[in-house]
Parts: sequence; C-alpha cells; structure tokens
Amino acid sequence: MQKVVTLQKPVSVFACAAVGGREEARGPLGAGLDFSDESDRFGQNTWELAESELSHTALTLALARANLSHADLSYLFAGDLQNQCVASSHAHLEEEIPFFGIYGACSTCTEGLTLASLVLTAAEDDSVAAVVTTSHNSAAERQFRTPIEYGGQRPPTAQWTATAGGAFLLRREKGADRVPRVTRVMAGIMRDGGISDPFNMGAAMAPAAADSIKSFLSLVGETPGDYDAIVTGDLGDEGSELLKILLKREGCNIDRQHLDCGKLLYDLKNKDCHAGGSGCGCSAATLALQFLPGLTDGTYRKILFLSTGALMSPTSIQQGKSIIGVAPVIELCAPESGRR
Amino acid sequence: MQKVVTLQKPVSVFACAAVGGREEARGPLGAGLDFSDESDRFGQNTWELAESELSHTALTLALARANLSHADLSYLFAGDLQNQCVASSHAHLEEEIPFFGIYGACSTCTEGLTLASLVLTAAEDDSVAAVVTTSHNSAAERQFRTPIEYGGQRPPTAQWTATAGGAFLLRREKGADRVPRVTRVMAGIMRDGGISDPFNMGAAMAPAAADSIKSFLSLVGETPGDYDAIVTGDLGDEGSELLKILLKREGCNIDRQHLDCGKLLYDLKNKDCHAGGSGCGCSAATLALQFLPGLTDGTYRKILFLSTGALMSPTSIQQGKSIIGVAPVIELCAPESGRR
Repeated sequence: MQKVVTLQKPVSVFACAAVGGREEARGPLGAGLDFSDESDRFGQNTWELAESELSHTALTLALARANLSHADLSYLFAGDLQNQCVASSHAHLEEEIPFFGIYGACSTCTEGLTLASLVLTAAEDDSVAAVVTTSHNSAAERQFRTPIEYGGQRPPTAQWTATAGGAFLLRREKGADRVPRVTRVMAGIMRDGGISDPFNMGAAMAPAAADSIKSFLSLVGETPGDYDAIVTGDLGDEGSELLKILLKREGCNIDRQHLDCGKLLYDLKNKDCHAGGSGCGCSAATLALQFLPGLTDGTYRKILFLSTGALMSPTSIQQGKSIIGVAPVIELCAPESGRR
Repeated sequence: MQKVVTLQKPVSVFACAAVGGREEARGPLGAGLDFSDESDRFGQNTWELAESELSHTALTLALARANLSHADLSYLFAGDLQNQCVASSHAHLEEEIPFFGIYGACSTCTEGLTLASLVLTAAEDDSVAAVVTTSHNSAAERQFRTPIEYGGQRPPTAQWTATAGGAFLLRREKGADRVPRVTRVMAGIMRDGGISDPFNMGAAMAPAAADSIKSFLSLVGETPGDYDAIVTGDLGDEGSELLKILLKREGCNIDRQHLDCGKLLYDLKNKDCHAGGSGCGCSAATLALQFLPGLTDGTYRKILFLSTGALMSPTSIQQGKSIIGVAPVIELCAPESGRR
C-alpha cells in the first residue's frame, strides 16, 4: 500500500554543492558548478577513483558553504553506479560519518533525500544528514557497456552518463530557515515496461515515473497545476515524450510543468549526448544547480522532484531480463510557501 | 557525530522467514528453514535468477506466516551482493511494493532493519515494512572470485557465501504484541583495517564491528553484561577472534556474550566452509532461525545485533584499495523486557 508521508516538520535542505567534469562545465548550468575538472580525472589515476574524489569534493564543498565539518554530520546516505557502490564507500571512508549505502540506480538522489528526511524526522533532534550521489561517464561506460576507447556507435535513444555529483545537507527546520524544504516524500513502486535495450533507459524508466507522478498527485489530492514544476531525473528526450503520453492516457497533462534534468544539464543541440544526460549525478547536480536556487530566489514555489532509476546490470541484460524503472518522489517547497 | 536513536515506540518484528540451499539445510540450524532447495537452483536456469527466486520466496513465506499479502506492505528494503543489486529488484518487481534498494554488503540485513525501524517511526502510522536480504554462493563466487567449476583453492581465512535469505516484517508496536522488538538503532561508521585480501573478509570487518560495539555501549551507557548476546553478522573464526582482541584492548570483554552468525549457520568442524559463512543472507537467515525465536521463547531478553559488511568490488581490489568494514547496530528485546 503506497503512502505519501507528510513530514511532521519540514526538513530543510540548507546547503548543497554540485561538481562536474568537462562536458558538464560546458553545459547550460556549468557556470554554477562549485567545482569542475576539465580532465575528468579529479587528480586520480583511474576513472573509478576519480568518481570517489568527485563525491568527496561535493560533500566537502557543501559543508564549507554551511561552515560545518564532517564531524557535524550524523548520517550520510550515499550511492553511485559502480559495482558494489565502491565509489561512495571509498569517497567517504576517512570522513568517519555514520553511513547508509543506498542503490536506486539514477534514482539514488531522490531515494537518499527521502530516507534522510524520514530518518531525521524519526530522530526528532537537531542532527544533520548528508546525501551525496555521483556518476562518472568513463567509469560507467566501461562497466556497463564498452570502454570509451572502443568508440562504439550509440543509437539516438542512448543517454550520456554524467560525470557529476551533488551533495545536500539536511536538518529538521528550525524557526525560520530561509532555505528550500522537503515537505512530503513517497517511495516508488518498481515498474517494467518490457524494455531490455540498455541504450534506451528513458523508455525503461518512463512507466515508473508516470506511475509515481499519478500516485503522488492522487494520494495528496492535487493536480499538476498545483506545482510550478514536475521534475524527472533523467528520462531524456525519448523518455520524457513517453512519460507525457503515458500520463495523458490517464487524463493527466504535465506539459506545462514537466522538466527533465537529463535535458537541462547539457546543450542537447550542440553536444553529442544523444537523448540527454543520465546517472546518479545527473539529477543530483541539476537539483543543486537549478532547482534549489530556483526555490530560494522565488522562481519556483513548490515542485515535485523525482529522480528516475533503471535497475539492471550487464548480467541481468545478458540473462534476458528487462530493465526495471523506479522513481521515488519528494515535494520541495520554497522557504515561505508549502504546508506546515 | 554518531548517535543511537531510541525509538519513540518500539518496532515489532512480527513475522520472519528463512530460506536456504543445500549446505544451509545440512547445517545446525537447517531444520528450522521455512524452505530449502537441495539443488540451490530454486527452479531457475541461472544462479543469479535462483537468488531472486530465493528472495521472493522468503518474503512470500514471511507474509504467509502473518496472514498478509504483498499489497499490505508500504515499504520494502531489500539488498544483495549482485552487481547493481539486481537479485532484489527482479525478485520483488511483480509484488508492487514501494521499494528502497540498499547496499551494505553483508551488513545489509541490519542496515535494512535500522532504516525500516526509522521510517516506520517517522510515518507514525500502522504501516508494515519488509526487509529482505539474500546471497547465493554460486552467484557470488563467479562474480567476486572465480566460477565454482574452476575449483580454485581457498585459504583457511576464506568464508563461504551463504545461499540463504531472510525476510522480516515490521510495524510499530501495537498494545501488547508478543513478538521481539527493535528498541534502539545506530548507523555504523566505515573502518579500514588495511586488509586487501578478499579471502580474509573477517579481518577486514572486525575493526568496524569493534568500533560499533564500543560506540553503542558508550552512547547508551551500558556494558556487555547488560546483554544476553552480542551477535555479529559474519566475522567467522578469524574475524571473531580479532574482534575480541580489539575490544579487550579497549577494556571491553564480550567473551561471554559474543556469537557470530557465520559460525552458527554451518557445522564448521564437518563442513568445508573454512572460516565460516558470509553474505547478506547469512546474518539474515541466522536472525530468523536462532535469534528471533530465542527472543520469543525467553532464551534471550535483550541482544545487540550487528551484521558486518565488507565494502569492496573486484575492481576496487584490483586498483589497490583495501576492504572497508561497516556495522550498523540494532538492539532487539524480548516481548516483555526492554525500554518503553
């Protein structure tokens, strides 16, 4: 029985940071990155270790913005796409923060924000939680498909795994925090659209995104018009079109509200990233670069944010299983609006 | 800043089930298994899909014990050792339960019980959450080391990944539930003992287990003597000895309380599984087979339970990184004792 949890007290997202690689720095949101590395290496010898460094850097910069240190954190939710999520564990080992490893593929950012909000609510104290999710194009390509040096041709529905990450600091709202806040959260139900082509993740995730949007709106009794934006993680061109078609069939039109992080992080007309960005870092960086600032400066009053995950592995694809989609949802409100 | 959360109202673990393969059925706890398959195949054509079926079976049997259906569940926390945790996603796709994928290697069982307890506490309603964690020896061996057909020799410190799983149903305590309950939880801090030998996971995890036990006892102001058992997940022979040595250096003696699931699931004298069992299914099955029944029948009044995870991947080992340990902790109390 799917439920929306309305947080007893909103949870403030009081600091964040976004880190990216070369292509992300050249994208439309690139100027806002807190740190970027033109080489994509982040000072490391392997792409895998580069992603760990990216993850560590994102959290360290978010803490610096809030004038806090790693020791001030009581919970860290972190995840990535590498096998056994090692990018995250190696990134944060020396920080000595109580750690929860999570895996929701590209939905990991919203999964982490959902769990962090609920854990802070349960703890009923002034603890600070961090959520950090990352991806690295070169590490992902050689793990999931082929090393980039191979130069394999990609179909137009393929997406570009972002070399990026976002870090977020959360705490239960205190008095009049002038920052965006999480007000409601919902876990996603896994949905299978029968897609088994790893070059078409957007289509694989669209049914889960449609299901989560419809369920959330129905459970809280609201319509798309009650939101300034309904933001999906990384459906890209292909998945975004499918999402809108699926929802229209159910009588739900989100044409005016819908934005997709996979289409915002890169200049799709001029950058060869096919259907758009993807990866745990795509929605995380875009949330930090566009939506949290937009909620603070009044561009948005209330948004739904749902990173979208494609649950699969090279082995599961080889064994003939389709790619499963999942999309947890959070409602984010500007400092002054939203429920109390 | 590490914290122990004392749950506002205890969370009941009101049903569970354990499933195993051939070796688990022959072990000392085998007679208690809710289901076992002598072939380890669970009706599937691949070891990977066999693990999914094992996971699905464990949850279905736990629900049957409680006379509930999948539709009664509001949250599912599930995890395993396969790349991208696909055993869990494919296992539970058709059950349509709001899903949180988690990854804590062999600590995933306690991670899931911790998060489920906190999420139920935050939701403040009568939701039911499930936690299911599994491992499969043959799927793990060929992913992490070599296919079993290769017949590679294993050193005495190697552990035997359990073909097993446990499923647990949790809800906030109602009146006088006559079942074991989770009363306090603590996330673990990652610790690195400098071990990079994937055939010595016990030694890699012992520092994290020692750290978590010491921190938990210190934060709640209790001593080992306040617990009937302090149960680690799968340190095995080697890791268990190291754990006790590390704690004694800190003035903490748990000789009388310590038990290790990796040493309980198999008959170590007669079964060729070297230092003991391991895997996400090892501590989960042992909790369901020995400790939850023991808390119900009065064998134990109060225990600390900490599955232990070794965070690594074949790639991280090849790139020279050591194996990181992590050990979240839950306090479990018998129906009548423990804090309210």
